[in-house]
Amino acid sequence: SIWCSIFSNIQKRSKPNIPVYNNSEMLGRFYEDFKIDRNTGESNLTQIYLMEGLDFILRQTKAQQPFFLYWAVDATHAPVYASKRFLGKSQRGRYGDAVMELDYSIGQILKWLRTLGIDNNTFVFFTSDNGAAVMSGPNESGSNGPFLCGKETTFEGGMREPAIAWWPGHIKEGSVNFQLANVMDLFTTSLVLAGINPPDDRILDGLDLTPVLLNSSQPLKNRPIFYYRGNELMAVRLGQYKAHYWTWSNSWEEFKKGINFCPGEEVPNVTTHEQKEHTLQPLIFHLGRDPGEKFPLSVLSKEYQDALSRISAVVQQHKDTLVPGIPQLNMCDIAVMNWAPAGCEKLGKCLKPPESNPWKCDWPH
Amino acid sequence: SIWCSIFSNIQKRSKPNIPVYNNSEMLGRFYEDFKIDRNTGESNLTQIYLMEGLDFILRQTKAQQPFFLYWAVDATHAPVYASKRFLGKSQRGRYGDAVMELDYSIGQILKWLRTLGIDNNTFVFFTSDNGAAVMSGPNESGSNGPFLCGKETTFEGGMREPAIAWWPGHIKEGSVNFQLANVMDLFTTSLVLAGINPPDDRILDGLDLTPVLLNSSQPLKNRPIFYYRGNELMAVRLGQYKAHYWTWSNSWEEFKKGINFCPGEEVPNVTTHEQKEHTLQPLIFHLGRDPGEKFPLSVLSKEYQDALSRISAVVQQHKDTLVPGIPQLNMCDIAVMNWAPAGCEKLGKCLKPPESNPWKCDWPH
Repeated sequence: SIWCSIFSNIQKRSKPNIPVYNNSEMLGRFYEDFKIDRNTGESNLTQIYLMEGLDFILRQTKAQQPFFLYWAVDATHAPVYASKRFLGKSQRGRYGDAVMELDYSIGQILKWLRTLGIDNNTFVFFTSDNGAAVMSGPNESGSNGPFLCGKETTFEGGMREPAIAWWPGHIKEGSVNFQLANVMDLFTTSLVLAGINPPDDRILDGLDLTPVLLNSSQPLKNRPIFYYRGNELMAVRLGQYKAHYWTWSNSWEEFKKGINFCPGEEVPNVTTHEQKEHTLQPLIFHLGRDPGEKFPLSVLSKEYQDALSRISAVVQQHKDTLVPGIPQLNMCDIAVMNWAPAGCEKLGKCLKPPESNPWKCDWPH
Repeated sequence: SIWCSIFSNIQKRSKPNIPVYNNSEMLGRFYEDFKIDRNTGESNLTQIYLMEGLDFILRQTKAQQPFFLYWAVDATHAPVYASKRFLGKSQRGRYGDAVMELDYSIGQILKWLRTLGIDNNTFVFFTSDNGAAVMSGPNESGSNGPFLCGKETTFEGGMREPAIAWWPGHIKEGSVNFQLANVMDLFTTSLVLAGINPPDDRILDGLDLTPVLLNSSQPLKNRPIFYYRGNELMAVRLGQYKAHYWTWSNSWEEFKKGINFCPGEEVPNVTTHEQKEHTLQPLIFHLGRDPGEKFPLSVLSKEYQDALSRISAVVQQHKDTLVPGIPQLNMCDIAVMNWAPAGCEKLGKCLKPPESNPWKCDWPH
């Protein structure tokens, strides 16, 4: 989310457009060399990414080299785009067209793996980095279905993602698993699949999901999920229970400008516009019965007390063992943006950076 | 919905409990003879309905008689209940337990049809009569996913239903059809499936769905759906567009008592607590892009003008050809309730009705 905020800023005229790299050298920039028509939503970028992906897979396969492909397409992120073949083809507007092209492209990748005969030897994982950015409106974002609010928030609409694991012969087709997991698990899981021991000189937040993925009868321990916003532990999920220690949609200041992280939704005391502390008496929801986080459990109920005492112990342990990292993004500086990325000389695309003028970053979300 | 309101009233002590009939004779009453434990949610009523259904199918099959079974179970309607085998078994609370038992029971019916060898000759249709009654809270109601509000309203959460048609050898397994349809179509469709001509001395609102069900390549005409609340045409759907001529969730009076038809949801100018007229400039939503009815099209857009002109013509034709029925439920009278249903004498279960005291009904929804 923070990353995306940087992207948005970059797109302003006073800042360089996002560069597109091939390995470590730039090929050109968004809008300038890689066209995205913001009026029609037309761009063939996904097709370019697809071709590069297929080509990479082919080269590695020919060379009999194992590979890790991180195929992170951005067509469903504002500015939402699709190529001519898909534009206007869905019932879901431009966003649906982009999803249709994404779906088609992933289908092409899976087909390619089968064609090359490496489908039984390739693990594919599909997921998203955050919930739909519902503040962008229906033309530029998806829907979070029954879940509350969207991207930027620690409600389920901001944090819960679909995920599909594919590995013919190893993962049973059509099976559904309810294991709580997060994208940090993909690091540990990928290492294990590659036969590499995860580093043991630090604490890794990610768990190895292979027991769950390859043998769904073997559940991982009842692991908690921590919901952070910046440095603040906003909420914790343990089993079906989720406790909110802080609630916040966005500031009144932003909200009054028309920016709404929860359009059409308003849960009193939950979708608050002030950063509201509930530390002494967290709001607790049972996500099985109430996936939309609309009906907090009564603090007087036995269910609340039982859930709280179990969650409190987990949070205490988390805080006791947490080693805070050193912030990497606390200082902002227009001069460090992509004015002159590697490879710009060859293309004659180097821009002169402004003078360095760092300031302490302010992250409004 | 209106029917259910009567049910709720009946359950008060000053009124007779709902009778359970076998054909035209009562077998007993809810709570008294057919136990529903309102504290634990335990009742074996669904199992009783299941046994009756299976037995009916067996008798008809043995007698080589065609049959029409309307299997309308009520476990997912407040008071929500499940039998011991299912109680506490789902992650979705009591409501989920009831759904689990419903799912199991329908599975038993389908299995029975296969066992009796009549599955290739039996059309099964599964649907609901309204959206989840979200005003009852998560313990006593389902979820409407991305759709706005719930039962009693003319928003999608109140009106859009899942529907599954099953007929091995005739309906392709796993196929999905986007035909707009409503439960009134089941009357006409059932007649056609039974080889009976629908009566032609009156206008039938239902269409024959068999072309769509049996040959999904043959779409019905782009038929409109009319959303009524009482006598008022609240909204119209045509294709992906839905125009609201009136908006109303519930009255301020009810709302202030804590009755909320749209818990956690509030769309300005849409989920209104006054009956708000938009006849001169209806709110129009594109349900493909915006299934949650949160972002009305701009009245200045060409898309709005085009949609409105097509919808206006359809509404005009509807109003011109509409023959209003004579209201059957305009007068209320406690004396006509089920004090002494047919068969009560045999059981010694007749209650003395109060004196007839009819009044003009007031339907608050």
